[in-house]
Amino acid sequence: MSKLPNITTSIFTVMSKMATEYNAINLSQGFPNFPVDERLTDIVTRLSKENVHQYTPMAGYPPLMNKIAKLTKDSYNRIINPETELLVTAGATQGIFTTILALVKENDEVIILDPSYDSYESPVLLCKAKPVRVALNDDYTPNWETIEKACSSKSRMIIINNPHNPTGKILTENDFIQLKNLLEKYPDIIVLSDEVYEYITFEEKHISAHTKSFLIDRCVMVSSFGKSFHITGWKIGYTIAPEYLMKEIKKVHQFLVFSVNSISQFAISEYLDVVDVNLLGKFYQEKRDYFQKLLQNSRFELKPCEGTYFQVASYANISDEDDVTFCKNLIINHGVAAIPISTFYSDHKDQKLIRFCFAKDNFTLESAAKKLCQI
Amino acid sequence: MSKLPNITTSIFTVMSKMATEYNAINLSQGFPNFPVDERLTDIVTRLSKENVHQYTPMAGYPPLMNKIAKLTKDSYNRIINPETELLVTAGATQGIFTTILALVKENDEVIILDPSYDSYESPVLLCKAKPVRVALNDDYTPNWETIEKACSSKSRMIIINNPHNPTGKILTENDFIQLKNLLEKYPDIIVLSDEVYEYITFEEKHISAHTKSFLIDRCVMVSSFGKSFHITGWKIGYTIAPEYLMKEIKKVHQFLVFSVNSISQFAISEYLDVVDVNLLGKFYQEKRDYFQKLLQNSRFELKPCEGTYFQVASYANISDEDDVTFCKNLIINHGVAAIPISTFYSDHKDQKLIRFCFAKDNFTLESAAKKLCQI
Ligand SMILES: CSCCC(=O)C(=O)O
Ligand SMILES: CSCCC(=O)C(=O)O
Repeated sequence: MSKLPNITTSIFTVMSKMATEYNAINLSQGFPNFPVDERLTDIVTRLSKENVHQYTPMAGYPPLMNKIAKLTKDSYNRIINPETELLVTAGATQGIFTTILALVKENDEVIILDPSYDSYESPVLLCKAKPVRVALNDDYTPNWETIEKACSSKSRMIIINNPHNPTGKILTENDFIQLKNLLEKYPDIIVLSDEVYEYITFEEKHISAHTKSFLIDRCVMVSSFGKSFHITGWKIGYTIAPEYLMKEIKKVHQFLVFSVNSISQFAISEYLDVVDVNLLGKFYQEKRDYFQKLLQNSRFELKPCEGTYFQVASYANISDEDDVTFCKNLIINHGVAAIPISTFYSDHKDQKLIRFCFAKDNFTLESAAKKLCQI
Repeated sequence: MSKLPNITTSIFTVMSKMATEYNAINLSQGFPNFPVDERLTDIVTRLSKENVHQYTPMAGYPPLMNKIAKLTKDSYNRIINPETELLVTAGATQGIFTTILALVKENDEVIILDPSYDSYESPVLLCKAKPVRVALNDDYTPNWETIEKACSSKSRMIIINNPHNPTGKILTENDFIQLKNLLEKYPDIIVLSDEVYEYITFEEKHISAHTKSFLIDRCVMVSSFGKSFHITGWKIGYTIAPEYLMKEIKKVHQFLVFSVNSISQFAISEYLDVVDVNLLGKFYQEKRDYFQKLLQNSRFELKPCEGTYFQVASYANISDEDDVTFCKNLIINHGVAAIPISTFYSDHKDQKLIRFCFAKDNFTLESAAKKLCQI
């Protein structure tokens, strides 16, 4: 009967709710807990009295679209045409959903890496297409050989997430070379690149898919101001695609939301004049380093983290419980909420791994670490 | 190739854009041009400095959901459970799209009245279901006989829009009696009731579908704060449905947007404590009456308007042009933008009718009327 029979309440909802119930420190769902930049909230305060409360044009508020084009140029030296290649969305989630709905057809196959963020599979199923899950290597790098083996004449799309939630892995030049080789063999495959953490990378620089010439004509890139500006609640993101794909995406967008929250678009447009996105990596790198240092003497074993604001940790030395049980008990007995990594696997494989969000003020990180070090 | 091959740029976009280009008075796309209530913008100003910038829960900000339940009780004496029967959406459009995606399956049939607002058919097509258009009577009342003739064992949904865009028609007690008779014969049909103008009715009181006991278990009601609070750009609406349907709607919502603009939800939640929605009908009734009076000596023939902020007018005495051409020339030659009614018909039938939006300050209405009276 249900079109999505296997969907239950999202683990992000479950854990955030439980964290509230038990008054635990919430390092589960990914959102910052520090104040938003005053320059941005000042803009909102002022704009609220201006004429910013009616529909913006369908694809986005034009000045914001021009600023996004400038951002893309400044960040990657990639020139896009905001009128034909850009869409402002109600968060990256809406960009992903709309792209899949517009471009994936019945019986198409869509390659989704395993583990993956949980919002790729359901839109594929709603299109009556087939998600084909391909395991990442043990170090969370893509295994291009197995990806290629999973491709067929039915393959329509490969979804990549770079930097990768939950593992923090970022794609290398070599990954893109291998992707290029693969795509040469499959001219009908397009790439959906979820880059919501594009500005949150550390030692290595982020490579944005749509800067690669072989991808420009066959890649849809999705990003999020929620992640970049610490405003996850605003639900403003954007999608970049070549015109022939963007045309189809816009058709669905028009009936899916028509347009996106106006005052937020006006505010971000102004904020882009003063904010420096290049400081974001350094900001979160310090948080990562601080959190890792605080947990140094804990019994958790921390995995490498190249980007995102998530830290994966093994509790294999601590407990034999499966990761969902471990996370629930962590809230109940120790007052800290995290996300079980099994959530991100199609088969919910337990690997004694959990994910902490370190987008928190230092006091919160310290309080959480203190509890975690006592385990 | 395209999943929506027949979709071109929306007439609302075309006309609003042309209005800007020609510096015409824009009575086309439906949005108010007067300032938003200061009480609401004051709330935004204050909230912007508070902790309102991160994800709200998936189905909505709980205090807002409680206020919507209270509004529903106060307005219609209808008691809903906000936890299980309510969803806050990124505008009513997202509520409509999400409902159709969640509940309509391949080969289902969906009854859509003709004329209709343009955002019902595409989501049905994306589900590979079949839109079945049924003409309204000449006075824009539903013809329940022909609706019943269009029903079959494949029928899954009837979409009603009450008050009706573009005609301003509202459903009567008798309409609901006939709907009840029809639904008794077709136990699998559910009703999607688009009531975004629910508080904008004039001589007759609005009857909300979900207040009818025979519909409570089989009706999805969609509403919009954009229309009720003159904030079309905010894109905040809500959807009410019985739990078994709402469960499915929420599953799609979770992957479609996850959650909705937070600061807007916080602000509307507070505003609902002070605003009186019952004043809205009177407010727009005065505008309607004023606009009708201003056009009294024009050559346009004005149709009755029971609700919404739209006035349908015939230009049959003025020109033989088809309505799209007439609207374009109206902008170019007379500086006023309107919407051709053929847009709302599945076969784009020209009836020498156009739609004016009268949600404008009096100066704008006067300036527009002056131009229109010279034709
Ligand atoms: C949309 S809720 C989940 C937020 C997030 O991106 C995450 O925690 O992985
Ligand atoms: C979403 S743009 C159209 C606005 C509207 O509801 C109308 O003009 O009918």
